[in-house]
Amino acid sequence: MTKQERATRTRQALIRSAATVIERHGYAEARLVLISSGAGVSTGALHFHFENKAAVAEAVVAEASRGLHEASGAIRHRTDTALQALVDTSHTVAELLRDDPVTRAGFRLSCDGERSAAPDLRAEWQRRVQDLLTEAADVGTLADGVSREDAVAAIVAATAGFEVLGRHDGAWLSPRTLTGFWRLLLPRLATPQALTRLDPSGTGATTATAGHTVGAGAGEAGAPEPVARR
Amino acid sequence: MTKQERATRTRQALIRSAATVIERHGYAEARLVLISSGAGVSTGALHFHFENKAAVAEAVVAEASRGLHEASGAIRHRTDTALQALVDTSHTVAELLRDDPVTRAGFRLSCDGERSAAPDLRAEWQRRVQDLLTEAADVGTLADGVSREDAVAAIVAATAGFEVLGRHDGAWLSPRTLTGFWRLLLPRLATPQALTRLDPSGTGATTATAGHTVGAGAGEAGAPEPVARR
Repeated sequence: MTKQERATRTRQALIRSAATVIERHGYAEARLVLISSGAGVSTGALHFHFENKAAVAEAVVAEASRGLHEASGAIRHRTDTALQALVDTSHTVAELLRDDPVTRAGFRLSCDGERSAAPDLRAEWQRRVQDLLTEAADVGTLADGVSREDAVAAIVAATAGFEVLGRHDGAWLSPRTLTGFWRLLLPRLATPQALTRLDPSGTGATTATAGHTVGAGAGEAGAPEPVARR
Repeated sequence: MTKQERATRTRQALIRSAATVIERHGYAEARLVLISSGAGVSTGALHFHFENKAAVAEAVVAEASRGLHEASGAIRHRTDTALQALVDTSHTVAELLRDDPVTRAGFRLSCDGERSAAPDLRAEWQRRVQDLLTEAADVGTLADGVSREDAVAAIVAATAGFEVLGRHDGAWLSPRTLTGFWRLLLPRLATPQALTRLDPSGTGATTATAGHTVGAGAGEAGAPEPVARR
């Protein structure tokens, strides 16, 4: 391993450790010594990479943004239609929020006003939703009479809700909940012809669950359990 | 004014002041002296009503809960159908979040884990949504093939999203945004017959805006502007 490779690896370990510490203690209480020790390095090593805590937080958000951007690009590349790419991307965002501390901490740092660390992940997600719905409209797969702005707002709000509610109850970020959301919404968004080709449970390798049929209607018998119980 | 009336009035002033202080500084930084001076009373008077800061916070959440419960009951009483009551209640919740610091602080205290002050306002809202959709299903106004659980989850997630996104950009809590949400969702929730009688912009005196027609489809020409710009 070259010196350069070691440095990159240490930087990544510091970002991951920072995400975990910030998630546990909040930004204000996230001490640098916890972050460096979590990455198995000295605070001196931390300061080699980052000037201060704000710089670490910015790196967490930037890393989360990079991961989301990369995932979203790969999904669009492998997916036939913009609407399916939208469904698949939302499943992947939920999966990252469930499993990846960098994504979780990135959203909190970017959105909660604890720190206004650029980039704004929710605004980036909103632009992604807008782009994919515009693409769907351009090729005529968006249902007639549906306002694109209404659709963007509903999708962005619901996914922000899943993120926030999922902090206390992971069921809100489950494939089941996301699938139910798209099973409800897709028949309103897609033309009848486009709808037949869409899978609300996602077509990704990691997020695919038992393929539900859109629009067939689960009724009460097949309805998912309540997503949150308290 | 009797002694009892004065005490009630002081208690209400303290709750309102606490909401404002907690909203501005966060629960951890909300100092009792700021809360009492904001209500125009001494800290001694505050301690006559509340044992400590946790008790003040609990009173804020309880007061927010009471307000939401009262509004929701009044709306159901004056509204013909459960689905319209659901639409109207969501508009009123958004209005309270826009205009009432007690509701805003109540949601933050109840949901953000700063303090786990009972009652849980989001769980109460979820039960309300569940009850109204069950009522709609019982009288046959819920569209065939729609899973009630999917609908509850989508509505609860979207409204949680409006609340959280609205903290940084009030447009997310505007009548326009809420109306757009219901314009999108109602044709999926209601039977065609029930749909003709529903107004996505709400039928309340305070929240009524220009009556949109559901399902007619605003298209791009009539689409609302982007709800959030950054």
